Amino acid sequence: MSTAPPFSFRLTATDGAARAGEMSTAHGLVHTPAFMPVGTQGAVKGVHHDDVRASGAEILLANTYHLMLRPTAERIAALGGLHAFMSWPFPILTDSGGFQVMSLAALRKIGEGGVTFRSHLDGAMVELTPERTIEVQILLGSDIAMQLDECVKLPAERSEIERAMKLSLRWAERCKRAFEGAPAGLALFGIVQGGDDQALRAASARALVDLGFDGYAIGGLAVGETQRVMLDVVAATAAALPAERPRYLMGVGTPDDLLEAIARGVDMFDCVLPTRNGRHGLAFTRFGPVNIKNAHHADDARPLDAESRCPAARGLSRAYLHHLFRSNEALGGTLLSIINLYYYQEVMAGARAAIAAGRFADYLGATKEEWHARRDRTLT
Amino acid sequence: MSTAPPFSFRLTATDGAARAGEMSTAHGLVHTPAFMPVGTQGAVKGVHHDDVRASGAEILLANTYHLMLRPTAERIAALGGLHAFMSWPFPILTDSGGFQVMSLAALRKIGEGGVTFRSHLDGAMVELTPERTIEVQILLGSDIAMQLDECVKLPAERSEIERAMKLSLRWAERCKRAFEGAPAGLALFGIVQGGDDQALRAASARALVDLGFDGYAIGGLAVGETQRVMLDVVAATAAALPAERPRYLMGVGTPDDLLEAIARGVDMFDCVLPTRNGRHGLAFTRFGPVNIKNAHHADDARPLDAESRCPAARGLSRAYLHHLFRSNEALGGTLLSIINLYYYQEVMAGARAAIAAGRFADYLGATKEEWHARRDRTLT
Repeated sequence: MSTAPPFSFRLTATDGAARAGEMSTAHGLVHTPAFMPVGTQGAVKGVHHDDVRASGAEILLANTYHLMLRPTAERIAALGGLHAFMSWPFPILTDSGGFQVMSLAALRKIGEGGVTFRSHLDGAMVELTPERTIEVQILLGSDIAMQLDECVKLPAERSEIERAMKLSLRWAERCKRAFEGAPAGLALFGIVQGGDDQALRAASARALVDLGFDGYAIGGLAVGETQRVMLDVVAATAAALPAERPRYLMGVGTPDDLLEAIARGVDMFDCVLPTRNGRHGLAFTRFGPVNIKNAHHADDARPLDAESRCPAARGLSRAYLHHLFRSNEALGGTLLSIINLYYYQEVMAGARAAIAAGRFADYLGATKEEWHARRDRTLT
Repeated sequence: MSTAPPFSFRLTATDGAARAGEMSTAHGLVHTPAFMPVGTQGAVKGVHHDDVRASGAEILLANTYHLMLRPTAERIAALGGLHAFMSWPFPILTDSGGFQVMSLAALRKIGEGGVTFRSHLDGAMVELTPERTIEVQILLGSDIAMQLDECVKLPAERSEIERAMKLSLRWAERCKRAFEGAPAGLALFGIVQGGDDQALRAASARALVDLGFDGYAIGGLAVGETQRVMLDVVAATAAALPAERPRYLMGVGTPDDLLEAIARGVDMFDCVLPTRNGRHGLAFTRFGPVNIKNAHHADDARPLDAESRCPAARGLSRAYLHHLFRSNEALGGTLLSIINLYYYQEVMAGARAAIAAGRFADYLGATKEEWHARRDRTLT
């Protein structure tokens, strides 16, 4: 680890607010805008890493909350770290665990020190502090660690949003201090909070930039607000962040969300949608979303997209995919997850190329038009 | 289909009763002894065809019962046949549907004409006759069709075994007649019945050989009898069948069953064990069976078999596979299914090479010894 190259980021092109760049990590290069598939428990649900990689993914997200509880960060460290454990030798970003504590843990108590919660697995009481989340992410051997933050569901009172934002800032400072002994090459990102309040967002961004992080995330969005509100917050927050650092919009979203956020200056994304929707029979395609369970696919010999880079999207008929779902064959969910992961990466690759060519607005418009223009009944 | 080469089989080597051969079908060559993974509903459970093929499988079995009910044989025919539907351009053997009628259908009535049963899917009454099973298998576009037979669970009265065996013979004759209009290249196998009664088995084999089929299956075994009884029946039945036709032991079995049956002259096998056991956490390996859910695997960084051809058996730690099962990640079942499919094909490839080299008995002995010799507690 001591010989790992330092984390770095450089812009290779800009087009309006949209940016293309290269992020260099201890486990390799990531081209941005980048979409990170979610390997919740050390695996992208239902999908083999080889397929994740083949889809074009250069970086995975892994959930600290899940892994610290099972198999535990200490066990993963003893087994050589998360990259070796998962057999994924490419970059990994780990979240802080805070978000899952809020959404999954049975009992939780947030205090100045951190969060205490009851494990959803065995009922044990666990404490997650800013210092502990950094320790865990170092044990996991992550390439990009995230600060602990508190994320508030929207709508919420301004005072509640402000309290959580300020607590997150104090935790950011403690995470940064705890990070001082981290191995070379590991990066730490701060997380902007502030809900849908632009003034609070601006204050959060300013304070984090003053502390100084390797990258900045925009957290606490896609938690109940409209897309319009989300994009307004993204636009203003991204503009308040330093150009020379990567910007990561957490937990977002649909292909449309991704393109609109790229247009506003975001570089990185993660989301469970491609795999979760895939398991439920919903495919994301160039022609818009397709619900493969709909009866009219039963006799349709056409593939989902004859021109896709994805072998399953290109080579299997809608009728066959439909049949797998009707027959409760798990392979159906796996194949649609793979198809969606390829499509997300296709959208990202298209965005990168368009930004480099200075025609991102055209790409965004043409992509959205294709989602709608060819969506007749036989295609959805 | 009219230009398909005729079905053929030739022996390339024999070693005692063990045989190696080549079976030529309309969709390619199959080297025997061959193990056929089971693609129940048009998919090997949890495993992508690409992985099935990569494991070394040259032929799949598909279940007529499932496919005739959903998506229906007529729909598959309209979509270009089963090979196109599944995107599996290699040989396919279809069973007759009779076995699943007995084991899955809610209500069933066996008569001289055939079987009438209530579909387990929608409750509709369906009739499966010898003529209909041939029609369905032709619609599916199978390479090897099986006759309709009645399979009796053991132990059973001799009179009951004899009744079912004789009915199966009359159905064999009707299947052969119905098969006269079948496309060129399609093969039809007869099925020897007779339970654990050697005299009935001999009579069944003789009558089928008189009718004349492209190959002969041994059905009605692994249905409750001991391995010793099964192997005695296999040995005597195989010896009563013509050397120049392939012999297929249906629904069997463990790697040990396969090797012992090869030693007695069997050429083909199918079984759900590698995928079913894989989904339940049981791996078949060179070192014998391994229950990956056992707690002592949690810290074991070693792969299941560092020398396996299977990337997952070779490249993933026991600790990681254990974690996937403990975390209820479906990927665990998929990976162990793949690992088992590779191992079954490895056993077959080893058998073929050993027979060609005239040292099958040594291979059988050494393989079994390795299953036991290295099975200390840390390996199971």
